[in-house]
Amino acid sequence: MKLSPFAPKKMPSMPVIQGCELAIGEAGIKYEDRADLLLMRFAEGTSVAGTFTQSKTASGAVEWCRTHVGNGHARALIVNSGNANAFTGALGEKSVTIVADKVSQLVGCSVGEVFQASTGVIGEPLPDDKMIVGIESCAQAMGVDGYERAASAIMTTDTYPKFTTQSCQIDDQTVSVNGIAKGSGMIAPDMATMLAFVVTDMVIAPDVLQSLVKKSVSKTFNCITVDGDTSTSDTVLVFATNKVKMDPIESEKDPRLAPFRRVMKKVLKDLALMIVKDGEGISKFVTIKVRGAKGARAARNIALSIANSPLVKTAIAGQDPNWGRIIMAVGKAGERADRDLLNIWIGGHLVTQNGGRVTDYNEELLAQHMKGSSILLEVDIGLGRGRAEIWTCDLTHDYISINADYRS
Amino acid sequence: MKLSPFAPKKMPSMPVIQGCELAIGEAGIKYEDRADLLLMRFAEGTSVAGTFTQSKTASGAVEWCRTHVGNGHARALIVNSGNANAFTGALGEKSVTIVADKVSQLVGCSVGEVFQASTGVIGEPLPDDKMIVGIESCAQAMGVDGYERAASAIMTTDTYPKFTTQSCQIDDQTVSVNGIAKGSGMIAPDMATMLAFVVTDMVIAPDVLQSLVKKSVSKTFNCITVDGDTSTSDTVLVFATNKVKMDPIESEKDPRLAPFRRVMKKVLKDLALMIVKDGEGISKFVTIKVRGAKGARAARNIALSIANSPLVKTAIAGQDPNWGRIIMAVGKAGERADRDLLNIWIGGHLVTQNGGRVTDYNEELLAQHMKGSSILLEVDIGLGRGRAEIWTCDLTHDYISINADYRS
Repeated sequence: MKLSPFAPKKMPSMPVIQGCELAIGEAGIKYEDRADLLLMRFAEGTSVAGTFTQSKTASGAVEWCRTHVGNGHARALIVNSGNANAFTGALGEKSVTIVADKVSQLVGCSVGEVFQASTGVIGEPLPDDKMIVGIESCAQAMGVDGYERAASAIMTTDTYPKFTTQSCQIDDQTVSVNGIAKGSGMIAPDMATMLAFVVTDMVIAPDVLQSLVKKSVSKTFNCITVDGDTSTSDTVLVFATNKVKMDPIESEKDPRLAPFRRVMKKVLKDLALMIVKDGEGISKFVTIKVRGAKGARAARNIALSIANSPLVKTAIAGQDPNWGRIIMAVGKAGERADRDLLNIWIGGHLVTQNGGRVTDYNEELLAQHMKGSSILLEVDIGLGRGRAEIWTCDLTHDYISINADYRS
Repeated sequence: MKLSPFAPKKMPSMPVIQGCELAIGEAGIKYEDRADLLLMRFAEGTSVAGTFTQSKTASGAVEWCRTHVGNGHARALIVNSGNANAFTGALGEKSVTIVADKVSQLVGCSVGEVFQASTGVIGEPLPDDKMIVGIESCAQAMGVDGYERAASAIMTTDTYPKFTTQSCQIDDQTVSVNGIAKGSGMIAPDMATMLAFVVTDMVIAPDVLQSLVKKSVSKTFNCITVDGDTSTSDTVLVFATNKVKMDPIESEKDPRLAPFRRVMKKVLKDLALMIVKDGEGISKFVTIKVRGAKGARAARNIALSIANSPLVKTAIAGQDPNWGRIIMAVGKAGERADRDLLNIWIGGHLVTQNGGRVTDYNEELLAQHMKGSSILLEVDIGLGRGRAEIWTCDLTHDYISINADYRS
């Protein structure tokens, strides 16, 4: 697999999060000679929040997490890559229970405090025996660092590991937030094949955490799309070990929440963008800003219509400032639009106005922008105040090569 | 452009339709040394019906036809290829009027009896002077045959001309229906970049024709998709010259309508399938049948979700019987589905049952089916009686090559 041109040149050093230990292992489910298992253990009293795929055919692990996340407490996370344990019927449900049982015994907690995620091939039964052996070896290797290795262990078609960290000061204490994630095809709003796990030592009640995470995800992970396809396994889980010395935050109105909200959103956005920037076959990173729509939802639908249009995506791959295809995508979104009010900018250059292209249209400037690696498309619908921003990538020969060969 | 592997080996001989004359010409708008203009002249008393793109940024020609089709009478059709005259603002609207004026003078009718369509590049002004010269030369060359050449004149990225004919007996008279069409990217339900023109000598009132055409389009053209993109210019126009010696059909309940309805649907379906089979970069023709959904609309949404999924389409291109991606696409459709009730067949072979793959799953049989050129995917949702059938093609390297280079 060719490394994404957007692979970060420099990655952050990941701090220890008090109350969180982790280890990786080799269950040997699909990949040879690489880690494919991640176990995390959290201190007693850890809060958990999560958001999951909207798919109607969600995986067993997703159903398990949905059932238990409402309790708000977590002691462990187990993740395997290479097999999604999705659409594996009663057998798959049994695997989820067996895995939770095993982890709960080793960690010393109830099964409902064990969270899990699986990513990879759909429809293959998960080999329980290999999982058990792998989990046991992880449990014997737990340590306080290794987030970088953890990010590698959960990769499938990702070309680079995704991890990030942020911190802020609250009550004169340092609060840290570490995040890891994996992509990279089947990425669409409402989550897609995407796993992200965030750990913080913040002291926060589960319901406040859940509300904060849900809002942050709507502005970060749910604003990215690679191919408009939605996976059966998408999961974002956030664990707060409550280890910092401070009074707990138990209300959304607590003013001390502001800096935490900021760093959490930064971590989620960093991870979301890393996923897009590792989109299968990416050659261009694309930001789409829509404003002036009748409402926020209309703006989002228009932005997604542009972002998911194969004709827009292939034009970008071909470095063609083809604003005609942007108009087509606005038109097909099904939202109100008026040809004569619509303005479009490519790379900050106005290209259409008053229902036609601008008269002093300079194709050379546009062509130059299209040769760059980051493309900016802006559309003003001219009807209202609805805004949206969506991040995506182009559609290239490499996307076809990857997906006509790889069985996901 | 590489000829589609599905280009018909044999094309029908097109009969004369009484009351219809036609000619092609070279306006030289975009293409060198090929016809890019089609003029049709209809006898007085010709009925017209039409359906158009749902795009909110429809072209000037589409808006023109929408305005006039309700009157039910047509005397002329003018079509140019190479320039869509879409998103060309006030200039574009003026072009539409100039063209209608010129044609009405030459044919001797009112401007509202002139129908028009343009296909090609979006956003470039249509050169009126070239159009005028081209229309004049067409008007001097009118004859009763040449439907094959007409089909070639309206092509853009099509790799073969699309035309078909059917006939039936009504009141002991032969009624003929001739159709021509062009595709071939930006094809999606609710019409897409697709033009189809049908001429018949049937004797039928405009309102009956409109109702019949609308129903037929919903089962034919609106059941095809290449890339999910919808054009600004999609148009189906049907002209009935009322020249056969028979009492006119003035009610939908007239029993003589049955054979006409059948041949009209056959003509529209033939043209629709020819368009899919010339889908940009096609290597496989794909039929998707969904049954057992909660309703017909749900079945259609699920079938389209499968048909438009880049991951399903690339798997088919790669000859991979990847039913996991079909499940993903069912799951993301947003319609009710139950993992444990879902059955999937590939090439008639059952692959999933009871929420998992079937136990005597024979991958070899599936692989063999996937090597063929026509792929059949069937899904039973197991919840109700909703059915839908959608025709599409795979997503290949050639699609990317065509669309990363061609400015449409």
